[in-house]
Amino acid sequence: MSSRRPGPSVRTRVTETFADRSQRGHEDRLATEEPLEVRLTWPGVAAARVWVTMRTPGHDFELAAGWVRHEGLVDDAPGAIARVAYCTDADLAPEQEFNVVTVTLAAPPLRDPGHRHTALSAGSSACGVCGADSVADALAVAGARPWAGALPDPAVVLALPDRLRGSQPLFERTGGVHAAALVTADGDLLVVREDVGRHNAVDKVTGAQVLDGRSPAAACLLVSGRAGFELVQKAASAGVGSLVAVGAPTSLSVRLAREHSLALWGFASTDRAVRYA
Amino acid sequence: MSSRRPGPSVRTRVTETFADRSQRGHEDRLATEEPLEVRLTWPGVAAARVWVTMRTPGHDFELAAGWVRHEGLVDDAPGAIARVAYCTDADLAPEQEFNVVTVTLAAPPLRDPGHRHTALSAGSSACGVCGADSVADALAVAGARPWAGALPDPAVVLALPDRLRGSQPLFERTGGVHAAALVTADGDLLVVREDVGRHNAVDKVTGAQVLDGRSPAAACLLVSGRAGFELVQKAASAGVGSLVAVGAPTSLSVRLAREHSLALWGFASTDRAVRYA
Repeated sequence: MSSRRPGPSVRTRVTETFADRSQRGHEDRLATEEPLEVRLTWPGVAAARVWVTMRTPGHDFELAAGWVRHEGLVDDAPGAIARVAYCTDADLAPEQEFNVVTVTLAAPPLRDPGHRHTALSAGSSACGVCGADSVADALAVAGARPWAGALPDPAVVLALPDRLRGSQPLFERTGGVHAAALVTADGDLLVVREDVGRHNAVDKVTGAQVLDGRSPAAACLLVSGRAGFELVQKAASAGVGSLVAVGAPTSLSVRLAREHSLALWGFASTDRAVRYA
Repeated sequence: MSSRRPGPSVRTRVTETFADRSQRGHEDRLATEEPLEVRLTWPGVAAARVWVTMRTPGHDFELAAGWVRHEGLVDDAPGAIARVAYCTDADLAPEQEFNVVTVTLAAPPLRDPGHRHTALSAGSSACGVCGADSVADALAVAGARPWAGALPDPAVVLALPDRLRGSQPLFERTGGVHAAALVTADGDLLVVREDVGRHNAVDKVTGAQVLDGRSPAAACLLVSGRAGFELVQKAASAGVGSLVAVGAPTSLSVRLAREHSLALWGFASTDRAVRYA
């Protein structure tokens, strides 16, 4: 079996065109985007696929663990995730060797691993079943517990994007990835991760805490992009107190943040930040 | 039944903080993000849910039709999509009245509507089934036919982002949505659509053509954000000749573009554009 382990970026030849119509060929770096399949198992139950995502390789175990935590399949009980490893099935295609991860739980999951997928996938519901069922499921927050600690004050919020920018090496190289960080009320970055998918970057920071035996709850989740509802959902499920985004929030993310008493900031920069909830 | 029809943006009260720590309360506009459930039916078969997406309301029928076309459930045969309408089930929650769309095909779909969802969802495969199956399915391009016409030359590419920016009214108001456009080889914008989801914006431009009885094939698909593999996949399935992105491509999008002989440009601006494939 080969051991082609994908890196976070790859080199490629490109041709650049400038305003004066001149052209220049050179080598560029692209953020790697590859599929990751997550399989779930627990004592007495064979591993089964629960998720496939397109992600930037690196911190794959954290990504898988964070997703499992955000889905509410485990809580913060120590040892709930017994093991995370690359799948070693003999019939796995060699090029997928590092693209399939198995998460082993110590006990059965706290909810059906397919709950959201069933709601979102085909054929599970005939017309006549109220659409609100699937919508409610899509919007559900698993294991939400409000943050009781201090929150970053506005001066700290204004300083955060610059701090994050200093911790985005892959973005510096490729210009093509998002970053997420867990941050203290004083603005210290606890953990920073990058990924082509903004939700993956959040899963990775959560998973980093979980695999270190810590709760993913923190004063603040900081993200380099926009704040779609999915990120608010993840912040709430992790027990985070505030979400600070460099980009815009949406109507649904503001609604969800208010419902979960989460402080929501958008358009955060050195010059200004807008508080929506 | 109420007739609360969601608009593309909503007003909200916010508090803005500035660098000098001054604060100002004012009204802001948020891009609307709401779920859309798509149900599919054809003669003799009851409608069933095939997709749920978070989208910006507006052009919902185009979004549904474009998704159906990109998934390869129909080809460009005129009348393949017989009808698109909001679902009128009596037991649908009133607030979901405009969030559920039924697409009626004239004949059975060209492939299983659940093909990709089965691959990506839970419980459909025990460990031991090669992960490449699901990965290959996730990467598959439905109905790809190469574009045989002219492509925009580099000077046209450099001019495109400014033209697109002039056709993004919702972005102007909210700063929180992506845009996509179908473009001729001369740089004329055929159709422009906006959405919180960049893939939705692409589905909408494709659907606009399909519902007008036209092929979605065009010289160029122009997108305001990054070029993830999913957008290359959609461009290829629509028979588009080139994809021009304002943001970065990924490793997988470059690979997919090369496999499908699609011209791929990234970081497009007035000053420069980078050709990756």
